[in-house]
Amino acid sequence: MAGTDRTQASAGQELSAAPVVILVEPQLGENIGTAARAMLNFGLTDLRLVRPRDGWPAPKARSAASGADAVIDGVRVFSHTAEALADLDLVLATTARSRDMVKTVLSPAAAAGALRDRVAAGGRTGLMFGPERTGLHNDDMALADAVVTVPLNPGFSSLNLAQAVLLMGYEWFKAADRTPPRETIMLGTRPATKAELQGLFDHLERELDDTGFLLPVEKRPAMVRNIRNLFQRAGMTEQEVRTFRGIIAALTKHAYRRAMAEFKSLK
Amino acid sequence: MAGTDRTQASAGQELSAAPVVILVEPQLGENIGTAARAMLNFGLTDLRLVRPRDGWPAPKARSAASGADAVIDGVRVFSHTAEALADLDLVLATTARSRDMVKTVLSPAAAAGALRDRVAAGGRTGLMFGPERTGLHNDDMALADAVVTVPLNPGFSSLNLAQAVLLMGYEWFKAADRTPPRETIMLGTRPATKAELQGLFDHLERELDDTGFLLPVEKRPAMVRNIRNLFQRAGMTEQEVRTFRGIIAALTKHAYRRAMAEFKSLK
Repeated sequence: MAGTDRTQASAGQELSAAPVVILVEPQLGENIGTAARAMLNFGLTDLRLVRPRDGWPAPKARSAASGADAVIDGVRVFSHTAEALADLDLVLATTARSRDMVKTVLSPAAAAGALRDRVAAGGRTGLMFGPERTGLHNDDMALADAVVTVPLNPGFSSLNLAQAVLLMGYEWFKAADRTPPRETIMLGTRPATKAELQGLFDHLERELDDTGFLLPVEKRPAMVRNIRNLFQRAGMTEQEVRTFRGIIAALTKHAYRRAMAEFKSLK
Repeated sequence: MAGTDRTQASAGQELSAAPVVILVEPQLGENIGTAARAMLNFGLTDLRLVRPRDGWPAPKARSAASGADAVIDGVRVFSHTAEALADLDLVLATTARSRDMVKTVLSPAAAAGALRDRVAAGGRTGLMFGPERTGLHNDDMALADAVVTVPLNPGFSSLNLAQAVLLMGYEWFKAADRTPPRETIMLGTRPATKAELQGLFDHLERELDDTGFLLPVEKRPAMVRNIRNLFQRAGMTEQEVRTFRGIIAALTKHAYRRAMAEFKSLK
């Protein structure tokens, strides 16, 4: 999935409204970088680190960010989680299931909805992630409004830091994305009208009648319906109808020529 | 998000029904490994490679798979895309937007629905991904039933292979996940009954009446309602009600002792 258009505005997303990402005690600079890349994929730009193990700046972070320099350049480092969250009013902690505390647990989609609702009400939100191996400390969990847990194969549920950030960013972005769930790219052409499709049906059925393909006659109506349904299902464009009529013409012409050639060779 | 329970069955997911993943001309063994890991996170296990650039097995693939050995062990290699797809009846191609062909484009969620529907009807499905840099060749795209495009920040839309696999696996898994979007972990306790909450309200308001906090009397009803609403919003457990009544008792006792001490010192 290569390709980036840096001139385009971020489709209907107001970047400043996106949640802040807080990484508590991240271990590897590389993981900070891949998390930054995943953030920018979905328009998140404000990255805060609490006590990064190897300090900051971390040399491998920028290369691992693969061009998400804007996120890396803006990183702020904090000594305490509470300081990193101070200006926010809704903070969700991403963690695996089952903790020894009474806490509201949200699905990523429900979390995205809660973040969007808070932003719409003028709030500032954040997504908090713990260290790679251990996850968030319970003291940090207690600073969060709720927990987000990604549904995972319980037989293989370790998700790396960047992937957790990616999934949360994805749900955040998707919650305001206006792309239709299903559309057909038309490339300058347009869907065929029913008249054009009928022209194709008439052409094909005429040729097939000539060949005797649609016999016996009592089966013809069902055969015709089946063929028409196939073409309807394909959702043909105007261009494709013309192409297909060309195919029919070519096939019949070829058959005619071959028949003529065979006829001549018999003489 | 660490932690894997290998003894647990995959929550309601029938692994054999999961879509096959087909990587066409993947370049780096490492990317094959991280894609395998992302697959297993969401219960996808059948990985097929078409003309992997560096051959197979690729040394870095297994370590990058971080324990997804079952996927790596089962990899099959094909010379032609068509062979890799031969036993499937619905194949979706994941790619960036805008191609020069007329094609149905699905969102990841709509794609997951289409895959689930086909599996429910007894079909075998696949998700096809192109080489890291260039994406799928148009000839391979033409073998797919439809295209899936992940909504991304148009200003930073390059997604690596494993991340694309991760997002598709996530949507597939989520489409059958029964986790409630919002729940509260109770840890052996239970939500407080309204009677227990009323006991807390009575206790607190009695103490506050004693201190004169709820004056003037004409403002008392609104003040009481505001305080009650705060506790209602918190969704207290039975244990928390008891804890909080302990807090009230401790605070009043402390105040009483301090008053007594001051009274004695005045004598």
